[in-house]
Formats: sequence, structure tokens, C-alpha cells
Amino acid sequence: MALRAIVLYDFVSENPGEISVVENEVLTLYSEDIVDGWLEGVNSRGQSGLFPASYVEILRTDDGIPIQGNGTAGDAHSTGSTITGTEYSYHINAQKGDTSAESAPTHLGYAQQHSYHTSQGSDEDWADNQNVADAPGVVQGRGGNAQKCQATESTRRGSAQQSRSSATVGKNLNRFSTFVKSGGEAFVLGEASGFVKDTDKIYVVMGPFGPEWQENPHPFTCTIDDPTKQTKFKGIKCYMSYGLTPSHTQSRVNRRYKHFDWLYARLVERFPVISVPHLPEKQATGRFEEDFICKRRRGLIWWMDHMTSHPVLSRCDVFQHFLTCSSNDEKAWKRGKRKAEKDYLVGANFFLTIIPPAAPLNMQEVEGTVDGFKTFTKKMDDNIVQLNVTISEFARKQMTGFKKEYQKVGQAFHLLSQAFEFDQQIYSIKLNQAIAFTGTAYETIGDYFSEQPRQDLDPVSDLLAIYQGHLTNFPDIIHVQKGALTKAKESQRHSDEKDSSGMIGISDRCKIISCATLAEIQHFHRTRVRDFRVHMQHYLQEQIAFFQRIMTKLEEALHMYDEA
Amino acid sequence: MALRAIVLYDFVSENPGEISVVENEVLTLYSEDIVDGWLEGVNSRGQSGLFPASYVEILRTDDGIPIQGNGTAGDAHSTGSTITGTEYSYHINAQKGDTSAESAPTHLGYAQQHSYHTSQGSDEDWADNQNVADAPGVVQGRGGNAQKCQATESTRRGSAQQSRSSATVGKNLNRFSTFVKSGGEAFVLGEASGFVKDTDKIYVVMGPFGPEWQENPHPFTCTIDDPTKQTKFKGIKCYMSYGLTPSHTQSRVNRRYKHFDWLYARLVERFPVISVPHLPEKQATGRFEEDFICKRRRGLIWWMDHMTSHPVLSRCDVFQHFLTCSSNDEKAWKRGKRKAEKDYLVGANFFLTIIPPAAPLNMQEVEGTVDGFKTFTKKMDDNIVQLNVTISEFARKQMTGFKKEYQKVGQAFHLLSQAFEFDQQIYSIKLNQAIAFTGTAYETIGDYFSEQPRQDLDPVSDLLAIYQGHLTNFPDIIHVQKGALTKAKESQRHSDEKDSSGMIGISDRCKIISCATLAEIQHFHRTRVRDFRVHMQHYLQEQIAFFQRIMTKLEEALHMYDEA
Repeated sequence: MALRAIVLYDFVSENPGEISVVENEVLTLYSEDIVDGWLEGVNSRGQSGLFPASYVEILRTDDGIPIQGNGTAGDAHSTGSTITGTEYSYHINAQKGDTSAESAPTHLGYAQQHSYHTSQGSDEDWADNQNVADAPGVVQGRGGNAQKCQATESTRRGSAQQSRSSATVGKNLNRFSTFVKSGGEAFVLGEASGFVKDTDKIYVVMGPFGPEWQENPHPFTCTIDDPTKQTKFKGIKCYMSYGLTPSHTQSRVNRRYKHFDWLYARLVERFPVISVPHLPEKQATGRFEEDFICKRRRGLIWWMDHMTSHPVLSRCDVFQHFLTCSSNDEKAWKRGKRKAEKDYLVGANFFLTIIPPAAPLNMQEVEGTVDGFKTFTKKMDDNIVQLNVTISEFARKQMTGFKKEYQKVGQAFHLLSQAFEFDQQIYSIKLNQAIAFTGTAYETIGDYFSEQPRQDLDPVSDLLAIYQGHLTNFPDIIHVQKGALTKAKESQRHSDEKDSSGMIGISDRCKIISCATLAEIQHFHRTRVRDFRVHMQHYLQEQIAFFQRIMTKLEEALHMYDEA
Repeated sequence: MALRAIVLYDFVSENPGEISVVENEVLTLYSEDIVDGWLEGVNSRGQSGLFPASYVEILRTDDGIPIQGNGTAGDAHSTGSTITGTEYSYHINAQKGDTSAESAPTHLGYAQQHSYHTSQGSDEDWADNQNVADAPGVVQGRGGNAQKCQATESTRRGSAQQSRSSATVGKNLNRFSTFVKSGGEAFVLGEASGFVKDTDKIYVVMGPFGPEWQENPHPFTCTIDDPTKQTKFKGIKCYMSYGLTPSHTQSRVNRRYKHFDWLYARLVERFPVISVPHLPEKQATGRFEEDFICKRRRGLIWWMDHMTSHPVLSRCDVFQHFLTCSSNDEKAWKRGKRKAEKDYLVGANFFLTIIPPAAPLNMQEVEGTVDGFKTFTKKMDDNIVQLNVTISEFARKQMTGFKKEYQKVGQAFHLLSQAFEFDQQIYSIKLNQAIAFTGTAYETIGDYFSEQPRQDLDPVSDLLAIYQGHLTNFPDIIHVQKGALTKAKESQRHSDEKDSSGMIGISDRCKIISCATLAEIQHFHRTRVRDFRVHMQHYLQEQIAFFQRIMTKLEEALHMYDEA
């Protein structure tokens, strides 16, 4: 029997003797003694070693006695809150955890509670070295100086999923359905209620191609500067800080990736039928390498562009708070943060904020449009995967094979000029020089080929990445709409048999969800056409400039022969 | 014991049941009976089957009795006149045959004699269906309708080598030396004599960079038209006929490859220290395939260009006869042909025709120049081989790999447009079309890549081929000059001991050979600089035009997005 502890934050071992631990994982401790801030124990994968004491919470019963268990990985698994597999397996575990909450043993109550709080995004971990005990939902004794900058992609995605599902804890009807988890069902059935301020109202208007989000009357953009490397804890921890300058404030704020991450979780939770753009992927190692930094910045620029150009996302409070709150005003930041985390207009309540157009909606047409869009997204997803594979391969070929071929030709011309230099003929000197120049020109063209993909294919790849993200969002969005439609049809049948009083409400609420879905589809198409047009143009312009550079180089070489 | 026959002309089997036979090979016959023009027998490689009766001569003793032997390949080998290996082994055999002539058994006298006549190039085989018994050196009974259009490259080269060596038959001093074989030694030693008409005189003048051939006062060029396919023997035999139009006559003559071949043999025999350009290689199969025809024509154009731009070769009688004699005037053709074959100013006598400049020659400088040239040719040969390998590989990559990559990108863009066509959005139509067009553009660029090497790399390859030919000629030319110099030095030492009467003659004659060699080297350099300048320019121009075509195609594609 051993002492147990639950992991509060991911920790990735960076030195020999340390072990990596994952949020919600149950560890077996060798003792309660903290030495220089470290504890020693075994993780659920059987690895033993040190980990920061502040990253874990020793499990105790209500009367404060530490919980003891076998401490085996299998045991940890049975708690339903251990993360051991991929993003997907974690996702399923989390769902199971949610639904088994009532029957879970007492000592797991904490883990459930913690999991819920995590999903609310209340971690004040980036308010480093501050007392955050007064933050809502934070469990006492968690440690204000906890560090979480090693969080992995799987955690991010996992918690986003959890956020979505958390609102429906306790609902048992079709419990795994996105329709239920998103709050769509609760809303359609009239179970959602709350006061919606005018400023929170989201209008769907009827446009030339059907329902669309009302335009943002104050559109803006936001630049993201090259990130700078920051350190804390006397250089022990490093992170990159990005300077964000929104066009409507012209005031720069500094944000870290985890701020983006927190924001993302809030948005996903807040907007069930809006496709929140995915953040660029996390990376455990090489986070400070130039290539990665450059790629992440490009990804964040794409993300920001999709955020600012979305009529709903761009205007929402939490995003505005993220963009405008001064980096130096900790209090204001925390105030906005808590407000966002306490927002009750999430999930089912979100739908209360949507004001549909007055015009009636032909539900048969809606169904056709949504089905067509479903087919389209499937096809687009398949084909952009193929395009991405092809251009990655094309980039690789240019950077290796093509480069090599042109360089080999260049070297062969150099060989020719070297042979000609043996010829002792004064009238051959200019020719020899011209051939040598041609050799160098071809070597340079080889370099051009190797550098070009950064200029033209990488941006296309970025474009495809952000759309791949959207395309993974839409099945859930479509599912919510379809769920609502099914409910409305069911209700129609019931009302045909009995009275129609409840039916009218359900039908109206189904229209609200449908309008929102169609507006989001419309927005997706508009953005897609805009982005692909602009980026195909950019790609072709870069290609033309590339071939122009080659031509210029060859023309220089040709010119050398004029006097040869 | 079986009946024996000697092969007069190469025959390549084209149908099952036939066997290939090679000139000078001894065959074993099953019988003397000719059936439909065919005989049956076994060749020296042990293959049995049919071959044209007119291609062979049954071996008979002086009293007309057929010669009989074991008919084994080994036996055939021992005659010293069987061709079984490569060009080189044949070459050696032929030389051995020459020197062992006196001790050869009686029944081989014929083969030797035949071999000698072949080397004189007297075959009237292209005067098809005509009685050529009156041609000089033709052995009775050879058959006027003999066909030789299957002659292989090895035969061509072999007979050229033989031509060179035939003039020195009987000379035993250092008998394998090119110096001896070319007649250089005989000339230096004062053994050559003959009347040289003024029109046969070849002047070497002193130019700014040393001795050079006197320019042709009437320079001309000669075009070669696309060849036309001709048939004879009611379509059984096909050949290609080229239309040649020299600029100084503007009168077109038709010539076959074998006419070129005959001319080449005459030139090699006539000009020991001149680098006669090599003809494009022969090819046994696929002779009527477009690619081969195109390549051969390009090779002949190169050959012609090097012939017409050579001050000596361009003016010589046999070349003029070849260029100007009407294709319809058989008599005139044969007259010129016989005259050329009876030309006594070949080998050693050639040197009698050279008139050196009056200015003295510093033999030490000459030696330095020739040695430097030797080093240069070695280096140039090595490096153009490397260049040729590289550009062949580059061509192959463009025609396969590059093409494939661009086509794959094109197809991927097509996939994208296909996905977008599912989108039902009217405002996306132009974009979808533009993306589809881009896909097609990239496929077209793939085609451009596959077609390009014909335009730019193939001509470079042709250029390198003609120079590779020249570079194989020069070791012999240098050898003759070095031989002359050595003789002059020997003579100098002797004269120091005795009197100097013979020495002056040798020194003068060594100067003649040296002047001719230096003039040829000078000509080589000038032509080289001219050719490489022009062809590197052409290559670069083609490359620029190629990239311009790509750019134009991409600009077309880009333009499609203007309205998207």
C-alpha cells in the first residue's frame, strides 16, 4: 500500500532522474517528504523518479488522511481519470469519467472535481508567483507557483473536448452525442434559460445566399510580431512572447502561447456551432528552434486572421479582453479572465443569444444545404490531405533532388571551364570565364530551388492546415443542427397526435440553431473563397518571381558570352 | 569436312531462321545449293541458319575446287581474318593479318587480298544492280548486286584503321606505330616522292597565334535536308536518303549514309595529321525510327559543319566530288570515285603537298605547345565525358522525375477544384475554374520539362559527341609529330658525328609535319571556341525561353484569379 497523489499540471522531464507526469494522472509516492521542491514516486507507466511537488496534490480523505492504494498502473487506470494514450483515447476516458461521476468511489471525487475545474479553464498557473487562492474553482493547496508551460497538444485538445461536454454532466439521454454535449438538446427542449444583454445578442440576417452572421460594424485586424524569448525563475523556464497589435487599439499587448490556448478553450466552450480556428500545433521539443518559431508564428497569424474576420468571434468579450487588456495590468487581466470563466452563456445558453432573421426558413432546403455541405467537407478534407501530401513531397523534391540536379549541371560546366583553362589560347579566356559563370549560375539556381518552397509552398501548406482544422470542427456543428432537426420532427409527430403548444417553441428553437449553422457554413465558404483566391494568387506570383529570378540569372550568364 | 565460304558483307538476321554474319567471317556451308537467293550454314559463333548467298563467296582453290575444312569457330579464328569481337579486337586482328600475309597458307590468300581491297574502299556495292567488275581492285565473282546496308559501326571504324595501316604494309620498323602507319616516318626519312600539282598544294601560313591553315578563299556551307526513306529490290531493302545542298553550287544532291562512310574512309586515308570529324554512330536496329533519324541527321549536320569549316578538308577533291556530283550522273560519280580511290597523295605522300611558311620554327616551342595540347585534350576528354554523363542524367530527370512532380502538383490542384465544385456556392465558380486551370497549367509545365531536353541538352550532347570524336583523333596526330621530332633529333645527333647533308632534309620535313600539326591544333581551338560559345549561347537562350514559357503559363493561370 502506498501514498497516492494526483497530477495537477503536465510536467515533461528534462533531466535524468526526473519523470514526466500528465494532468489527472494518479502517482504512487515513496514518501510525503518534499526535498528542494521535488517529490519522488512512480507514474502510471511504471517510471520512477522526481517531479515538482507543486505539480501534484497528495490525495487525502475528507478528514485529511492521505489515501493509500496499490499504486499500480492498472489501478490508476481504473480511476478513469488517468491519461495514458493518445488524444483520442484520452477523450473517451474523459467522457466516461464525466458520466460515471455519480458512481465513482469517494476518493475519486476530487479528481472529478478537479477535472471539471480544469475544463472551466480556471488554472491561474500563468499568474506565476502570485497568490491565486481566491480564483474561482481553485482547490486550496494547489500551489500558486505551479508551472504548466510543458502542456502537450493532447491535453489542450482533451480539455477543449471536456469543456464542451462538461455542461451536460448529469444528462443521460444519448450521452455521447455532440448534440447533447453541446447543449443543443437542452436548448431545443426549452431547458436553457437566462438573461441576455443586448450587447451579447448575436444577429443572423438574411443575405443574398441565405442566413449569414451580421457583419462586424467595426472590423479590425491584428498583427503578430516576431516572438521574443523570455525567461523566468532565474532562467530555469523559457517561453516565447508574442506582441499583438490590434488595428482598433493600436496598442501592443504581449501574449504567450498558453494565453492563446486558454482563449481557445473559452471559445470552444462558448460557441457550440461556430468553427473556432485551431491553434498551430504544440511541440514538446525544439520549441526555441527558429524553424518552429517561424512556423508557429505563421500559424498564429492565420489563426488571428480567421478570428478577426469572423463576425461573431471577433466581437466576443473574451477575445477583446485577450487583445486589449494591458500586459502590465495583472488585476484587469484577472478580472477579465474570471469573468470569461464564469460566463454562463456557454453551451445550451449560447443559443439564447442568437437572434434569427424574421423570415421563415424552409426546413427541407436547410436539410439539403446542410447535407450538401457535409458531402463537400468530406470531399474537401480528403482532397486537401492529398494536396498537402503532394506539395510536401514537391517541396522536398525541390529542396533535395532538383537542387542537386542543377548543382550537378553547374559543377559539370565548371569542369568544362577548368578543362578549357588548360588550352593556353588567349582568345579562349572570355569563353572560359563565361562557362565558369554559367556553372556558378546553375549552382545558384539549385539554391533557388531549395529556398523556393519556403516562399510559396509553405504558405499553401499553412492555408491547408487552418482549413483542415475547420473541417474537423464541422462534423460536430452539423451534428448539432441535425439533432435539432430530428427533435423538431419528433415533436411535429407528437403534436400531430396531441396538441401543438410545445411544438411551436421547439420549431423556433430548431430554426435558431439552423440559422446559426447556415450562417457559419456561409461564413466558411466566404472565407474559403477569399483565402484560396488570395493564396493561390500569392503562390503563383511567387512561382513567377522564382522563374523570373532563374531567367535573370541565366540572362546574366548569357551576357557573359557576348564578348567571348 | 564441310564446305567453306567467306563473308563479303555484314548481314544482320531480321527473321527467324536467318543468322547474322560478319564481313571476313568464315562460314561452314551445308551445301552449295542456293535456294531463292539463300544459302544455309553455320557461322563462327556456332549459329546455324540462312543468309543471303550474294553476301558470301564460296572458298575455292585456284583450280576452282571448293575448299573444305572442319568448319569450327576455332578453325575460323586461326585464319586471322575472322571478326568476332569488338571494334578493337577486330582492329588488332586486321593488323596481324597484314603482317602475317607472307606466311599465310595459300587458301587464305584470298581473304588477305579481300581485306586489302576493302581497306581501299573499292566496294561498288551501292552501285546496286550494276556490273562493277571493271572497278579497280574488285575481285571477280563477288557479285554486283551485293548489298551492304547492314554494315556495323565496328566495320566502319575497322576499315578506317585498316586504311591508315595499309599504306605501310611491308614496313617492319616499329610496325604498330601510328608514325609508321601514317607514312610520317617514310616522309621524314625522305622516302616519299611524287608530283604535286599546284591545286593539290596545302599552305600553312604564320598567323598571330602560330602556324595555321591558309583560309579557304571560297568558304561555303552545306544544308542537309530531312532524309527520305527509299526502297529497292521491290521494298525488301530500305535506306534513308539525305538531300545535300552546298551553298556554292545551290544544287541538291542525294546521298546515303554509306556514301558519307565511303567519303570518311577516303579522308582518313588521305590526311594523316588532320582530325577528320567522326560520322554519327551507326545503329543496327531501329534505323527507321524517328528519334534515330532525327539524331543521325543532327550528327550529319555537325559533321558537315566541321567539314565545310575546315580549310583543308573543305577544299579537297573527294569532298567536292561528294558534294557536287549529280546524283543522277552515275558515270561522273564513278569517275570521281575511282579517281579518289587511286589518289597517290595519301599517307606519306600527303606530306609532300604541305607548303610550310618561310619563317623558321622554334622546335622547343613546338614541343611545348604540342605537349600542352596533349595535356589539354586529356583533360577536355575526361571532363566532357563527365559533362555528357551529367547532362544525359539531367535530361532524363527532366523527362521523368521533374515532369512527374509538376504533373502531380497539377493533379492535386485539380483535386482541389473538384472538391470545390461540390460547394454549391455561385461565388466560388470562378475560383474553381481558376484552380482547375492552374492544375492544367502545372500539367503543361510538366510536359514542358519533358520536351525541353530536346531543345537544349540534346544539342549540347551533339556538340560534345563531335568533340569526343576529334579528341580520339588527336593522340595519333600528336604521335606523328612526336615521331618526326624524334627522328629529327636522332638525325641531329648522327650529323653531329658525321656530315649534315641528310639532316637538313629531315629537319625541313619535320618542320612540315610540325607546321601541319600546329595548324590543325590551331584550327581545333578556333573551332572549339566558336562552337562552344555559340552552343552555350544557344543552350542558355533555350533555357531562358523555356522558363519564359513556364512563366507565361503561370501568368495565364494567375490572370484567371483576377475575377475569381
